[in-house]
Amino acid sequence: MAAPAPTTQQEMRRRNLARVLHAVADGGPLSRAAVAARIGLTRTAVSTLVDELLGAGLLVELGPGRSGTPGRPGTALALSDRGPCGIGAEIGVDHLAVCAVDLRGEVRARLAVDAANRGSDPGPVLRRLASLVREVAEEVRAAGLRPAGVAVAVPGLVARGTTTVVQAPNLGWADLDLAPRLREDALGPDAEDAVCFVDNEANLGALAELWLGGHTPPPEDFVHVSAEIGIGAAIVVDGELLRGTRGFAGELGHVPVRPEGRPCACGGIGCLEQYAGEEAVLRAAGLDPRAVADGHPGPGARIDLLAGRAEEGDHAVRRALNGAGTALGTALTGAVNLLDPQTVVLGGALARLAPWLLPSLERELGRRIAGPPPVAVSRLGPDGPLLGAAHSVVRAVLDDPLARRG
Amino acid sequence: MAAPAPTTQQEMRRRNLARVLHAVADGGPLSRAAVAARIGLTRTAVSTLVDELLGAGLLVELGPGRSGTPGRPGTALALSDRGPCGIGAEIGVDHLAVCAVDLRGEVRARLAVDAANRGSDPGPVLRRLASLVREVAEEVRAAGLRPAGVAVAVPGLVARGTTTVVQAPNLGWADLDLAPRLREDALGPDAEDAVCFVDNEANLGALAELWLGGHTPPPEDFVHVSAEIGIGAAIVVDGELLRGTRGFAGELGHVPVRPEGRPCACGGIGCLEQYAGEEAVLRAAGLDPRAVADGHPGPGARIDLLAGRAEEGDHAVRRALNGAGTALGTALTGAVNLLDPQTVVLGGALARLAPWLLPSLERELGRRIAGPPPVAVSRLGPDGPLLGAAHSVVRAVLDDPLARRG
Repeated sequence: MAAPAPTTQQEMRRRNLARVLHAVADGGPLSRAAVAARIGLTRTAVSTLVDELLGAGLLVELGPGRSGTPGRPGTALALSDRGPCGIGAEIGVDHLAVCAVDLRGEVRARLAVDAANRGSDPGPVLRRLASLVREVAEEVRAAGLRPAGVAVAVPGLVARGTTTVVQAPNLGWADLDLAPRLREDALGPDAEDAVCFVDNEANLGALAELWLGGHTPPPEDFVHVSAEIGIGAAIVVDGELLRGTRGFAGELGHVPVRPEGRPCACGGIGCLEQYAGEEAVLRAAGLDPRAVADGHPGPGARIDLLAGRAEEGDHAVRRALNGAGTALGTALTGAVNLLDPQTVVLGGALARLAPWLLPSLERELGRRIAGPPPVAVSRLGPDGPLLGAAHSVVRAVLDDPLARRG
Repeated sequence: MAAPAPTTQQEMRRRNLARVLHAVADGGPLSRAAVAARIGLTRTAVSTLVDELLGAGLLVELGPGRSGTPGRPGTALALSDRGPCGIGAEIGVDHLAVCAVDLRGEVRARLAVDAANRGSDPGPVLRRLASLVREVAEEVRAAGLRPAGVAVAVPGLVARGTTTVVQAPNLGWADLDLAPRLREDALGPDAEDAVCFVDNEANLGALAELWLGGHTPPPEDFVHVSAEIGIGAAIVVDGELLRGTRGFAGELGHVPVRPEGRPCACGGIGCLEQYAGEEAVLRAAGLDPRAVADGHPGPGARIDLLAGRAEEGDHAVRRALNGAGTALGTALTGAVNLLDPQTVVLGGALARLAPWLLPSLERELGRRIAGPPPVAVSRLGPDGPLLGAAHSVVRAVLDDPLARRG
């Protein structure tokens, strides 16, 4: 309690509105009485809050029954499937994707296109992304939904609490604020009150794992490792992302694993990315990364190639993935010693390659740590960042339901 | 807001009492009006809270003046120097220490004795510690203070949220709950409601740095590296300790820095401790660690020896410390990439050795990271853990002032 937050009546009301919504989101449909029991407020207080949320179109009544409490059946409350929705967008090195998710967490629209974004001019890429967002927004508006904002996943570093991409080496972008270029252009009539988030893809993938990973109970402390071209990671501590001072935490790809090894594009030496990144693995398998990239454009194409060959028993590819697993294990030994996570999760492209990475990764962890944490494989795989983006907008609505927005 | 805390009137009152106390702790002496302005409550509400805290002996009135607001001078409120106090205790490999700190943060009593605790039977060590605590408690009771509890710093892993030392390799202790052995024995008449904390020395050192390090503003995100025999670290994120799932976070000493290097007592390979721990440095300087330990017992004696020789220009010692700095830099490269801290702080014995560690440490960080964070040297040095322990009890009182205790 170093800097306690102000506790006014006004703020209590906002918090309590959020608590009602979260209770219904986590356990719904629920009667008013069941909501009251869950959050420890009186039935009368809850009824007032519920009326407000019904009026704002965030909750709906499903009719009597299903209340779970004895006596007169209450009316069951559910989150609206016509209220606000969150739009997620993803800028990949090889693709653009957009989706919309309603308050219930259902994906209501989705678009993806191949795109050669490496070393690109941001202008055309962002205009194309905005046009995809408009298309998705129109589709969900036709279904009675209101976009409450857009969140964008990028393969790069984003300054904490801002919408500025500080550095996205694989796109070739630096110091670029995405919000002014996207907000008006993409959300049109809803732009003024809409939220606009920009975040690193690994962070959003980790949030998706936290919210949608299907773990019961969800892990509170984990390291989420993912890969597109580079190696990214995100650290979740007590159920929250650890962002770091500038927002750059989670750079597992630049942890030294061979301290006097290969020079890295980051300026460092022997970074994990030089031993477990996509290019390093292709090279270790005797393949020419550039030729493979030309022959296999599009999202996930090189990963599919590697996975396909490994499945067929290609020794060189299996050996390369085995080596990448070992390097991941060395870097994760450092992360586990520093963070003491409950579990390590392999997401993104690493989920697809897990069968050939896991044995050496776990062997390496076991060789260096007594009682290492379990390594799990994400069920969301490459969908994580896009879903995490859309859900982060939905969460913003649930956390502060009556903020002017959308 | 995944799991919002209950917000009842009762809890608001407790929170607001704490906010009044923290306001006076951070900015006092303050008038009631100044407190109200700082925490955003009405003067009337603050007066009621202040009366309660005056009645409980936590606040005192200093007489008119010094209010900082225009108009009729208010009565200045200050924390009491006769109310509850926190007792800190430290179990080192070579010593035991105990101190008492009042609500104002003043050290009111302090005792330290040499002790050969390596490979010791816990019973006699804890009885000796309890007797030191009793002595300090009697001294502060005579000055009108009430011990509100005791916190113990140990050189080992403590299970999160418990008082159990899971492993303290340099003491030779494992799976030992300190609370039942200390509480009654040490605090006597105050035992029933007293708090009893046990924590890793590096964690308490980092908390001391956060609370007492003299940084303005205090850093919110830092890695605090310290050493006694081994290398410990603690990670502060957003002004809070990152503890990890089991409470074992911060094990920088076991981050691999030479992945195929020397075997470590932990079972790992090439851990930092093998290159920057006390024994490793003595050995690298051509000294026999056991002979040096026999010849230089007592807290800090080997560190004094190393610092003395380095000051005199001893090449072997300087080279050994230079190597240790490089190894620290390699391990910290991983930590900085993962955590993106605002700063790295060298504390404990490392603060004393900083003049000879820093150049190579900073060179190594700079070689591997573009724009590395600054490395600062703690002003608290080896006093950190003991002061952090006592202050953690004081903080517990400030955070929940009217809990039955002491």
